[in-house]
Amino acid sequence: MTILFLIPVCLSLILSSSAQRPEPCSKTSCPLIFCLHIIFIPGHHLRVFEKFSYDAYGQNIRVLAAGKEGNQTFFVDRLLLFREGVSYEIHYHNQTCIKTELKEPFRHIGVPHDAHFLNQMVLGSSSIPGQGLLVNNWNGTVEETKESYLLTFTAFGCVPLYILDFTQKGELTIMTSFFDLVEGIEDPNVFIPPSFCDSVEVLPAKGDGARSFISLL
Amino acid sequence: MTILFLIPVCLSLILSSSAQRPEPCSKTSCPLIFCLHIIFIPGHHLRVFEKFSYDAYGQNIRVLAAGKEGNQTFFVDRLLLFREGVSYEIHYHNQTCIKTELKEPFRHIGVPHDAHFLNQMVLGSSSIPGQGLLVNNWNGTVEETKESYLLTFTAFGCVPLYILDFTQKGELTIMTSFFDLVEGIEDPNVFIPPSFCDSVEVLPAKGDGARSFISLL
Repeated sequence: MTILFLIPVCLSLILSSSAQRPEPCSKTSCPLIFCLHIIFIPGHHLRVFEKFSYDAYGQNIRVLAAGKEGNQTFFVDRLLLFREGVSYEIHYHNQTCIKTELKEPFRHIGVPHDAHFLNQMVLGSSSIPGQGLLVNNWNGTVEETKESYLLTFTAFGCVPLYILDFTQKGELTIMTSFFDLVEGIEDPNVFIPPSFCDSVEVLPAKGDGARSFISLL
Repeated sequence: MTILFLIPVCLSLILSSSAQRPEPCSKTSCPLIFCLHIIFIPGHHLRVFEKFSYDAYGQNIRVLAAGKEGNQTFFVDRLLLFREGVSYEIHYHNQTCIKTELKEPFRHIGVPHDAHFLNQMVLGSSSIPGQGLLVNNWNGTVEETKESYLLTFTAFGCVPLYILDFTQKGELTIMTSFFDLVEGIEDPNVFIPPSFCDSVEVLPAKGDGARSFISLL
């Protein structure tokens, strides 16, 4: 009899807790990520295509970026070792390296604790499985730069989908979209700088260290 | 024995056909759609939020749009009856109606036949079910306007996700995102103009009828 009474109570508790406002997921569920990025910078009519390897255990990031600005194509190969406090800009074609101090702390890919939950939505359709994706939208302000952001992460697993950065006036500066994300790093060597970088001197960091994490990528 | 031989042949045929380049899905799998839109027009720093009802059987569309341009908020309620060749701009607050000729043909939501397949990608992660969505990207040029577009539709069901319109110079003019799409129309009355529109005269269509379908919405 007690069980019969408890079942609806438990069910209603489960339903009410699942209907609660989502908490910011400060870390994605995948500590090792390989994915592709498209970064769109409307002010410069610039679209950058990136291969992005992320290691939250070792606090390492490797970014291979290719893009076109005006008639000029460019390619950047950047390795960020946050624990060592060094970033490398690697040029394989002439075996050179620019080694720079990295003062910014490593940030886990996730929704900042102080982000404001906006809404939940289904990208695509919720009518048929496999045709939609449940996501949460968040916004907030970066304390250091006072710029605002809009984040879209999956509701399950806290997988990043979109990061939109705005100026203080609300103009879109950078739109980053994440796709083809897989859990795990196929080649852990991507986080080891090539030997021709060993003897290079470390240059002091540019700016005052107040760069946003995304701007480093 | 013949069956044992046929099984791997059939399997390989199925696998090879599924690995083929996708064909443009000229119609979404849902003839009746209710969904939400966000339309972003970077040139005007304008974001419009829309409720969108779509009836491919009757060739009817109803759009309720709200947005903010500068300090001005606006609200538009538009009913497009393509078979009758009439569009209505409905103002419930003062019971008025602007009735205009609609020369443009109805277009099914889908990928145009002459669109070019760009690539397939997973929005989010393919490592864990429920954290990603398999989509196809297409691009092409609108013959009438010579403007180009980039389309993102789900790989299964041809559900629209993003439509990006560009000028001939490649500048982004309109970005439309579709979400919370459900199959079916909750209230079919949305496609019936209110009675205060009955006695209104039909105005001639603006422009030369070469407006893109999306610009009507």
